Amino acid sequence: MGKSAIRTVCKVDFDKPASEQPYLHNRWHPDIPPAATIKDGETVKIECLDWTGGQIKNDDFADDIKNVDLTRVHYLSGPFAIENAEPGDALLVEIMDVQPFEDQPWGFTGIFDKSNGGGFLDELYPSAAKAIWDFEGIYCTSRHIPHVKFAGLIHPGILGCAPSQEVLDTWNKREAELIAANKLDRDVALPPQPLNVHAGSADPNTKEKVGLQGARTIPGRPEHGGNCDIKNLSRGSKVYLPVHVPGANFSVGDLHFSQGDGEISFCGAIEMAGIITINFSVIKSGVSQLSLTSPIYIPGPVEPHFGPGRYIYFEGFSVDQHGKQHYLDVAVAYRQTTLRCIEYLRRFGYSDYQIYLLLSCAPIQGHVAGIVDIPNACTTLGLPIDIFDFDISPSAIPVKKLDMGRCAFETGKTEGEMVTTAGKNSEVSFGGGLNYKE
Amino acid sequence: MGKSAIRTVCKVDFDKPASEQPYLHNRWHPDIPPAATIKDGETVKIECLDWTGGQIKNDDFADDIKNVDLTRVHYLSGPFAIENAEPGDALLVEIMDVQPFEDQPWGFTGIFDKSNGGGFLDELYPSAAKAIWDFEGIYCTSRHIPHVKFAGLIHPGILGCAPSQEVLDTWNKREAELIAANKLDRDVALPPQPLNVHAGSADPNTKEKVGLQGARTIPGRPEHGGNCDIKNLSRGSKVYLPVHVPGANFSVGDLHFSQGDGEISFCGAIEMAGIITINFSVIKSGVSQLSLTSPIYIPGPVEPHFGPGRYIYFEGFSVDQHGKQHYLDVAVAYRQTTLRCIEYLRRFGYSDYQIYLLLSCAPIQGHVAGIVDIPNACTTLGLPIDIFDFDISPSAIPVKKLDMGRCAFETGKTEGEMVTTAGKNSEVSFGGGLNYKE
Amino acid sequence: MGKSAIRTVCKVDFDKPASEQPYLHNRWHPDIPPAATIKDGETVKIECLDWTGGQIKNDDFADDIKNVDLTRVHYLSGPFAIENAEPGDALLVEIMDVQPFEDQPWGFTGIFDKSNGGGFLDELYPSAAKAIWDFEGIYCTSRHIPHVKFAGLIHPGILGCAPSQEVLDTWNKREAELIAANKLDRDVALPPQPLNVHAGSADPNTKEKVGLQGARTIPGRPEHGGNCDIKNLSRGSKVYLPVHVPGANFSVGDLHFSQGDGEISFCGAIEMAGIITINFSVIKSGVSQLSLTSPIYIPGPVEPHFGPGRYIYFEGFSVDQHGKQHYLDVAVAYRQTTLRCIEYLRRFGYSDYQIYLLLSCAPIQGHVAGIVDIPNACTTLGLPIDIFDFDISPSAIPVKKLDMGRCAFETGKTEGEMVTTAGKNSEVSFGGGLNYKE
Amino acid sequence: MGKSAIRTVCKVDFDKPASEQPYLHNRWHPDIPPAATIKDGETVKIECLDWTGGQIKNDDFADDIKNVDLTRVHYLSGPFAIENAEPGDALLVEIMDVQPFEDQPWGFTGIFDKSNGGGFLDELYPSAAKAIWDFEGIYCTSRHIPHVKFAGLIHPGILGCAPSQEVLDTWNKREAELIAANKLDRDVALPPQPLNVHAGSADPNTKEKVGLQGARTIPGRPEHGGNCDIKNLSRGSKVYLPVHVPGANFSVGDLHFSQGDGEISFCGAIEMAGIITINFSVIKSGVSQLSLTSPIYIPGPVEPHFGPGRYIYFEGFSVDQHGKQHYLDVAVAYRQTTLRCIEYLRRFGYSDYQIYLLLSCAPIQGHVAGIVDIPNACTTLGLPIDIFDFDISPSAIPVKKLDMGRCAFETGKTEGEMVTTAGKNSEVSFGGGLNYKE
Repeated sequence: MGKSAIRTVCKVDFDKPASEQPYLHNRWHPDIPPAATIKDGETVKIECLDWTGGQIKNDDFADDIKNVDLTRVHYLSGPFAIENAEPGDALLVEIMDVQPFEDQPWGFTGIFDKSNGGGFLDELYPSAAKAIWDFEGIYCTSRHIPHVKFAGLIHPGILGCAPSQEVLDTWNKREAELIAANKLDRDVALPPQPLNVHAGSADPNTKEKVGLQGARTIPGRPEHGGNCDIKNLSRGSKVYLPVHVPGANFSVGDLHFSQGDGEISFCGAIEMAGIITINFSVIKSGVSQLSLTSPIYIPGPVEPHFGPGRYIYFEGFSVDQHGKQHYLDVAVAYRQTTLRCIEYLRRFGYSDYQIYLLLSCAPIQGHVAGIVDIPNACTTLGLPIDIFDFDISPSAIPVKKLDMGRCAFETGKTEGEMVTTAGKNSEVSFGGGLNYKE
Repeated sequence: MGKSAIRTVCKVDFDKPASEQPYLHNRWHPDIPPAATIKDGETVKIECLDWTGGQIKNDDFADDIKNVDLTRVHYLSGPFAIENAEPGDALLVEIMDVQPFEDQPWGFTGIFDKSNGGGFLDELYPSAAKAIWDFEGIYCTSRHIPHVKFAGLIHPGILGCAPSQEVLDTWNKREAELIAANKLDRDVALPPQPLNVHAGSADPNTKEKVGLQGARTIPGRPEHGGNCDIKNLSRGSKVYLPVHVPGANFSVGDLHFSQGDGEISFCGAIEMAGIITINFSVIKSGVSQLSLTSPIYIPGPVEPHFGPGRYIYFEGFSVDQHGKQHYLDVAVAYRQTTLRCIEYLRRFGYSDYQIYLLLSCAPIQGHVAGIVDIPNACTTLGLPIDIFDFDISPSAIPVKKLDMGRCAFETGKTEGEMVTTAGKNSEVSFGGGLNYKE
Repeated sequence: MGKSAIRTVCKVDFDKPASEQPYLHNRWHPDIPPAATIKDGETVKIECLDWTGGQIKNDDFADDIKNVDLTRVHYLSGPFAIENAEPGDALLVEIMDVQPFEDQPWGFTGIFDKSNGGGFLDELYPSAAKAIWDFEGIYCTSRHIPHVKFAGLIHPGILGCAPSQEVLDTWNKREAELIAANKLDRDVALPPQPLNVHAGSADPNTKEKVGLQGARTIPGRPEHGGNCDIKNLSRGSKVYLPVHVPGANFSVGDLHFSQGDGEISFCGAIEMAGIITINFSVIKSGVSQLSLTSPIYIPGPVEPHFGPGRYIYFEGFSVDQHGKQHYLDVAVAYRQTTLRCIEYLRRFGYSDYQIYLLLSCAPIQGHVAGIVDIPNACTTLGLPIDIFDFDISPSAIPVKKLDMGRCAFETGKTEGEMVTTAGKNSEVSFGGGLNYKE
Repeated sequence: MGKSAIRTVCKVDFDKPASEQPYLHNRWHPDIPPAATIKDGETVKIECLDWTGGQIKNDDFADDIKNVDLTRVHYLSGPFAIENAEPGDALLVEIMDVQPFEDQPWGFTGIFDKSNGGGFLDELYPSAAKAIWDFEGIYCTSRHIPHVKFAGLIHPGILGCAPSQEVLDTWNKREAELIAANKLDRDVALPPQPLNVHAGSADPNTKEKVGLQGARTIPGRPEHGGNCDIKNLSRGSKVYLPVHVPGANFSVGDLHFSQGDGEISFCGAIEMAGIITINFSVIKSGVSQLSLTSPIYIPGPVEPHFGPGRYIYFEGFSVDQHGKQHYLDVAVAYRQTTLRCIEYLRRFGYSDYQIYLLLSCAPIQGHVAGIVDIPNACTTLGLPIDIFDFDISPSAIPVKKLDMGRCAFETGKTEGEMVTTAGKNSEVSFGGGLNYKE
């Protein structure tokens, strides 16, 4: 008479390569066939691999991080066809729960090598590094970053509906233009990549097309959300997604046990495999009804919850570490804010790499504070005091250093590189402290 | 036997021009003489004018906003010498309270004209506009933006210690370099400006020096904080400030009844005159003890407090309104996020200018969500549902438009200009949608 | 053009006896004439004396507490006639602000002598005691209870509309019946008391009538609220009050800077004089529309706000300190809960009387946990960790005692009496550990 | 290298009677043998049946509730011996998680028949009734109480260490004295009951002894906590328990998906079977170190979280529904507070029995407001607005009744009985509105 257990529409297999599992895919394309059909109004469970499809191991070396194959990512579950969904509708996705697998109670945070992925601070910290996190119920701890424990604000890093061909074409055109104009000494966007493409259960012809056209999963995009990496899009959240193709073709993955605002080390959340429980419902003509140019959401009520007075806030401005003044550059300001926090926590015995990992995954608050007082944007970063098992407050003077062990590096290394020399910046000061190509 | 009423160290006079009041100043310079001396450990009250020194009137026209004289701003109270404070110390500033004057229960939010100050959205909304807010206890309302009421997260927009000559020289050098390299079709920084300088009670020679060297108060700067415009640096907050000169020479002003993250319209907080109550204490050698490169703070416990499920969050990515792709440009992303919110609220009958004003001053949450997924930075903007007296939730379909009246424009105008043509952007895509000089 | 300063409808005078000020009264009666008339929709300021009318001094002795004249209390401001309010309507009272007087920045918490007022723990702690609190902005501290500082959840202890004659008669009848049936060795209710009656500006005949019939202000009563002592009925709250007489005749007083759930020492809040700002509006037929048998309210958004993990919770059950089992007696359970907290804090060096005072006024959470598991009611008391400037958490083992000074006692005493002998309790176990009359 | 999946120390079997499962027990006694041994510092999972051991079915009739066998309850899991724990130590129990079984996603709330268990309002609502709740991730809904959905504040209703023989003797003596003195027309406590005793894996002689001496699990008791029914003793909480026997012999059960303060209908939480994950550690001499007379706890950080302004608060005073005045009787006040809420919600179409069920299990806040203003105790009840999918705020005038269906009653009944006649109360007014034996 009552409801029975919730239907699982997608199961993953840890004993089989991700590339061989038919309900996964790693590109955005309208032609990837649906993995299953879900009723309008139904609640289902969806299993997900970690975003790399199992490339990262629960060990004490970062070689897997250093050598990660980014042509393969992200392995998403789906797409799922939702009955009644048509282009122009909104898909209301209510995240009823996200949980790790009971027999896989761990996740990882990585700092990518500057030459393979990099991250927000890679011009200062170019080495690969890793921290493994153990989950016990709501809490996580790491042998690689001792003296911290916190409750996960668990969420999917990626969710969205498939692009239409027209939307996809727009993506490819504008990103190609950026790549063509690039003068930075780094990749600025990733074009379609046929290598290691996974198009779900698509036939070979379709798979080839997906490889040639399919949008990479690395960036989020305004038209559908996708890889938004929003930390409070967590349990209980209601997300309103624009529908671009019949059936919506919803995909989800990149589950995070926890993430800090910015996810600064790129592989910066606590990445994990797990199960997400979602209720789907279709809002007819929702795109126009809600003026839905990009997704909107309402967070759920069960965030880990510290009082406002239990954060230390750091301030950063758009003057980079070389003393160069940038014009209202929020990225420069936020990078400086994270550096202020690194300098602060370093005093307690943590290495910079440990802190870089921690700020990527712990529930830090990153705010745009002031964005109009030329030339300095100001951002703030709130660090929760209560995730530490010792007193980090400013009143803890003088500071007592603790034995903090170390995080994982590539085989043979016991610490990461630190770069302190200045890069050559944009004359018009939009470079954000990044090196330019000559 | 008990404590008596708290000492007021600085009184302002509404019947006298700001420029003639000796305890005010409008430049940062080490030679501006202290207005008063405060004991280490003492709590005092400091009165402040609004940041323009009374240029803006409580009326229904925005001519004063359009013609505001920005050479005069910001009128700060102080500087105050704190006993025992020496360079290298930290000054712990505990904000015990901020209140408007009992007989001045109002404030203003302005959108500056693009040609005189501008703001975050000035390439789309170039006209001057204004909203007047009435205060009743903890709440504010505006005849210019009906159907909203919210409690103020009251705070000073500016507080900091005077720069040393060395720090000041650094500021002037790096900002001059930016100005020299500027290719944008707009001011990117403001050099020292002798016109309308106010150097407190300085003698004429000192005043002249202050005019020639004194740093403008418009930007915050990492070395001392200053104009940081941080919305939760409010009542109960403890701020740790680096001290650069003997006595610290602390100044404060630019009081805000409320502000949203970003303060996007530049004159975007609810600007007011008022009284701030501060406890000062000196932490000897605090700069090195706390690794204090920039200010840090711990917020107070009495923020207006909505549950997480009472916000609508908007997402924005670094693709600008012309469809151009930018590289991890958080400012572009945040601008897009605000535009998503404007589109959403416009359906209820508000004009874009009303919403632009509202997002500047209401307690919206602006977060850096993901900053590493090339090429798209993602930011989020949380709009509190409960500041509206009607239902703005996505479930309110179809939307019922209300009569929203209008905000104030310059004499003779009843609406603001809207620009929809594309600007010419930086080839290397760091332009953030801004027009370039030819 | 904007709104002007808010009208003050009632001013108090600190240089004149409360009994001589015409806008005050200290009994509930329909015939007390209105002190002023307020418009439906108007916001006004109302000044209030402290509840004793100035009997308690800012000094270090508790003689004033021991000898307090309770025939005089509470001095309320009003009554105020609200235009349009009729019996059967609801009066919506929105508390826009509550503030102490700027030149009276202090309040007091008292433990009444068991023979003159007593309190929740008077069978254990029968002596008079006092703590003086100093206010600095949002915070209070006390020289009598060192090492604590907290933000006030400021509120009126008493607000309500005048009873009709019929309601008043009901009150007098049912309380007289209780007094007649009393077998306890203590007062159980206070009948009308002509001595020291203050009936506002009533003529002598009316005043005499008020003295003979007027309800005392000590208890709250369901028909109108009155002395409810609800700690989160604070700034921003909207209270819906039943109207019993034409004009509503609203009164308010007994302002509290802060109070803990239960206000256990009776004079247990931080009692103060101050100013309350209220917006009044009338809801026609609100009593039936809202089924308004007793007041209801919606709290405001600006409570001092600690995270859930920043409270230590104590549990108490309905087994009294003599080991006697009571039947689902929540008062016994809550008394035991407070005793558990006293035992806990005593280890840090505080005297029991200091803790008794602190639990009365600090923002502790007192919850009815389980009320159905016969025979034991269970209650909990949440003590905020962050009001102390040292670590009170259970991990602080071993405890380091601090020099806590002492609270104020009557002249010549340096500590309060502690009673540990058992009382004789009710056979049917409803006595709550109280002594019976023989 | 990383941690493996967490050890489960107790499995339950849904296909076998609870009375035959050796790791369960339903009495408190020191001689019940441990079900397993747990290391000091270890984290384990413990499976639990619902408190009745499966007596209540997922159907639409309340016959099972009406005829529940209370001699069998509560089936607890354990006891578990914790290594190193000795009498006088404290056992620190950190609740890492509580979850329902994945294939049993439902729970129940019952109103017991007045003649078999009863509840807080049984003199008004004497009939048996039931609501079944379906779980989807963090949320629950009920076909028996439509238009509500809320996130569970999931917790164990019962946890504690076994009593020593001395503690047990104290319990039996004081509860027998209460039973002997009882003049109420209802059970006031439950003596040891040999019928249906379950003593785990005890031998027959021990089982007989447990039957004769073993304390019932219905009440919580100060010496060990036990059946405390504390709603925020949830995930992430740290509980400090006194140890009375070697090994502590910790038991846990009575899992609740959600509960309101008071759990007023007795079977009032959302009762469920499930799995609790706990970390155990021993604090040597913790009883004296912490002055641990009763358990204390620190809540976890992930409560469902509504802002203060999203509650409607009801006030109640110690004047009962017959108009009789009681002396500071908090139970009377809290009963009146719940009745005020019933009257309020009734207007929207719910039956009184539906509301009685809802207030038992939804996350309502029940506070002791004022407990000293003779003769009236005042309590408050905060009802979260956001658990309803329609507007229950006082501004929703006039109210629109919805079709609310009905909750489950015994076969053949479609509504519950309502008693409105007055009972005869205690002369000394401690009866709380309860009927007396003649």
